[in-house]
Amino acid sequence: MERGDLFVISAPSGAGKSTLCSMLVEKVDGFVFSVSHTTRSPRPGEVDGKDYFFVSEQEFEKLVAEDAFIEWARVHGNLYGTHRAQVMEQLSMGMDVILDIDVQGAKQVKSKLPGAITIFILPPSWQALEERLLKRGSEDRKKIKTRLQNALKEIEEVSNYHYCIVNDELHVAFGELKSIVSAERSKTRRVLAGKIDLARLRPGPDSWFLS
Amino acid sequence: MERGDLFVISAPSGAGKSTLCSMLVEKVDGFVFSVSHTTRSPRPGEVDGKDYFFVSEQEFEKLVAEDAFIEWARVHGNLYGTHRAQVMEQLSMGMDVILDIDVQGAKQVKSKLPGAITIFILPPSWQALEERLLKRGSEDRKKIKTRLQNALKEIEEVSNYHYCIVNDELHVAFGELKSIVSAERSKTRRVLAGKIDLARLRPGPDSWFLS
Repeated sequence: MERGDLFVISAPSGAGKSTLCSMLVEKVDGFVFSVSHTTRSPRPGEVDGKDYFFVSEQEFEKLVAEDAFIEWARVHGNLYGTHRAQVMEQLSMGMDVILDIDVQGAKQVKSKLPGAITIFILPPSWQALEERLLKRGSEDRKKIKTRLQNALKEIEEVSNYHYCIVNDELHVAFGELKSIVSAERSKTRRVLAGKIDLARLRPGPDSWFLS
Repeated sequence: MERGDLFVISAPSGAGKSTLCSMLVEKVDGFVFSVSHTTRSPRPGEVDGKDYFFVSEQEFEKLVAEDAFIEWARVHGNLYGTHRAQVMEQLSMGMDVILDIDVQGAKQVKSKLPGAITIFILPPSWQALEERLLKRGSEDRKKIKTRLQNALKEIEEVSNYHYCIVNDELHVAFGELKSIVSAERSKTRRVLAGKIDLARLRPGPDSWFLS
């Protein structure tokens, strides 16, 4: 059976990563989110088990000790992790899995699963990133400075990613993301495991060629 | 300046390769054909210097001796070759170049230019391939058998190609081809050499972050 691919998507806060990932799951068949575990508090509207698995620090540490995570990291003071068995099950069912994670997590995934496909979303400029974060208005200035400080470090990692999308206009960026996904599904390994069987491409008993 | 990529496209006769390559050049910006040299006679409507450079065996052998070809091969009794300097110039101008060549040529290109992106077009089935070749009606049965004999050998090489497109419905196959091209243009190396300069992603003198 055709095995899915793991798509690792990273971006600095404000680059539009969450929007793009949601669009992918909504509009492209065969995509699922890997739901991360986190110790941070749910934001209004976030659902446990759908947006994240919200766990305590103690529960998280227990899973780390059990080596249950494909990657985990502390980001902006909170712990985030991706459950290995969950991802593996989704992939083996032929689903493509999105990991929406930061650059530290992406490095761990790449070392454990070298076949992962990595995509970095960039804002069109530093100025645009500042404006987007300031416009959100949901956080105090100190937190925004921390996010920008992290963004500065994260952007330096872009060259370690296979693909890079500049999110200036959302529909253009989404088009590029869809193309990346489509292209990965056109990789020979996947096509021969799924869409077509090489046996159909050899002359059968009714073949004119063999007559 | 952003350097283009070399796309090597192979397929058995009757898989629809020529149609797909023409659509790519017509409908996607920044694509050019690498015009091959050949010793075969022009078909009705083919233009020298556009479809092929039609040369004699002697001229072809002279170019081979000068190592002017990135690849060359004898196919169905005729010689075909790709001129190295021409391709290099197109790539350095930022164009993506299509090489519409057979599997022997593709192997030579891959060994000389490991960065080449290779795509194989498959028919949906052996039966479909036979039907398409027999329907063309432009060739005698013996020639068609030779083409099918070659097809059988060529299809075995599909797993050496990066991408594989099953050309069942033309518009679907073309969509997949466009996605492959778009995805390759989203490779980080290309994006950072063309679409965006990392300097724009660092805080400038007017940055709020640095204030």
